[in-house]
Amino acid sequence: MKKLLLLAAPLLLAQAPPPAEPPVYNAADKIIAEAPQTHWLTIDPDDIMVMETAAGRMVIQLAPAFAPAHVAAIKQLVRRGEFDDGRIVRVQDNYVVQWTARPDPSKPKPTPLPAEYERPLAGLAFTPSPYKDTYAEAGWVSGWQAARDTSTGTAWLAHCYGTVGVGRDNPPDTGDGAELYTVIGHGPRHLDRNIANVGRVLAGIEPHAALPRGTEELGFYKDDAQRTKITRVRLASQIPGFPKWQMMDTASPSFAAVSHARANRIGFFPRPAGAADLCTLRVPVREAK
Amino acid sequence: MKKLLLLAAPLLLAQAPPPAEPPVYNAADKIIAEAPQTHWLTIDPDDIMVMETAAGRMVIQLAPAFAPAHVAAIKQLVRRGEFDDGRIVRVQDNYVVQWTARPDPSKPKPTPLPAEYERPLAGLAFTPSPYKDTYAEAGWVSGWQAARDTSTGTAWLAHCYGTVGVGRDNPPDTGDGAELYTVIGHGPRHLDRNIANVGRVLAGIEPHAALPRGTEELGFYKDDAQRTKITRVRLASQIPGFPKWQMMDTASPSFAAVSHARANRIGFFPRPAGAADLCTLRVPVREAK
Repeated sequence: MKKLLLLAAPLLLAQAPPPAEPPVYNAADKIIAEAPQTHWLTIDPDDIMVMETAAGRMVIQLAPAFAPAHVAAIKQLVRRGEFDDGRIVRVQDNYVVQWTARPDPSKPKPTPLPAEYERPLAGLAFTPSPYKDTYAEAGWVSGWQAARDTSTGTAWLAHCYGTVGVGRDNPPDTGDGAELYTVIGHGPRHLDRNIANVGRVLAGIEPHAALPRGTEELGFYKDDAQRTKITRVRLASQIPGFPKWQMMDTASPSFAAVSHARANRIGFFPRPAGAADLCTLRVPVREAK
Repeated sequence: MKKLLLLAAPLLLAQAPPPAEPPVYNAADKIIAEAPQTHWLTIDPDDIMVMETAAGRMVIQLAPAFAPAHVAAIKQLVRRGEFDDGRIVRVQDNYVVQWTARPDPSKPKPTPLPAEYERPLAGLAFTPSPYKDTYAEAGWVSGWQAARDTSTGTAWLAHCYGTVGVGRDNPPDTGDGAELYTVIGHGPRHLDRNIANVGRVLAGIEPHAALPRGTEELGFYKDDAQRTKITRVRLASQIPGFPKWQMMDTASPSFAAVSHARANRIGFFPRPAGAADLCTLRVPVREAK
């Protein structure tokens, strides 16, 4: 069964003959499994945020290289325990799950952060994607889906499924890191360079993407009873024995091979696409062996 | 509140001053609301499939112009009531919700259908997208997101959020229409021309996209207790008083204006993208006024 991507349900399959030569269409999985350790980068546990909610655990990697002030502010909120007893306040279909730190009206509103929507390209090892991109020059930077503009000399993280960003009000500098979202739909790349993109989900997005959609405008929940409670958020560095996580080095031959395999799927696919868009070419991540 | 796309939660916003001039960033919504009746196409109620499940109602538009044999087979199954008491058997995160007609082991397996994965471009009014596409020449055909290859003279429907396709086994001609799926993640365009794309969800995808993800390989559910029951499936033409549905004519100036507005969002967006990918440029649909 495992070779079938969109296979018929088991019962209807009962009479189908087994293929003579099982096609290895999951070539990308094989490459990932066999990639040498040197093609993996270990993620700093101080850049991993572990969020426990009533729906499950979500493990998030932060991206200080792209939004240093936002990431520093988020880490401070985490260390102060301000996300504990927070809430998932919004689930909009084909768009985002959004959550906030514990509201405390007696506290002064945190200082808004600078609009870290892009950064200098200088100093980054940018691996361009071989495929056309609708929005920009797409590629990867040290394990992240990104894009660049060589004419302005800037780079930024791309908005794809599982990307984590910072909610803000209309003025560009009004985000404070206490309200975050992750993408649960088609990659909204039009948000690129319009909002602070601070990380991505490494694991545990599934039960959160499956939360009931909010009934109010933009998918907000109507009242607190509908919101999912956040019980505790910590950095992995604060949790003794928390597993180490790794991401594939996007400058490695293994990652190039994975991307090529995903752009040229075989077996189930009589006509390989010969290309794949940036959001489809996700970076493999894993708990370290 | 309605002007804010990724706004802060109400409580945290309490101290924010109202903007002096509310930006009209939802220009696309305004164009849709004001589009003349002549820019809308009424959908044949015989091409609308109304699926009632334990999670809610999903309204699906079928595309006989692209997969005539599959659509005819699906309509026959619907008219025979064979989807009644069917099951949602698979929910895979960032990929698909998949369901089947009522299994009946005593019945002969339906005849597999031809591989209707593309069709002649001739006879179609193809409106090309002005923006680059990773996979092909993207555009629209009479209200559908599509792509074409002028060198082979073929066109096909694109796989985007809400697209409905026909599950099949590994050989390309093994789908029979009794097992369908809809996309609930980033548009898997690599499926284009690899599977029969037979329609799209007009309404009601939300509670189905929010179903628990299946725990088995590829997101299949483990046992029947986990599956969502399909209570009844009918064509809209079989349901007295069912509302008429319309789709925007993708050859109309209104649709071009909607696409342009979506590619050049303002208000919340300090840096409009200047482009939008095919799956982002969804075709407006509505219950007829």
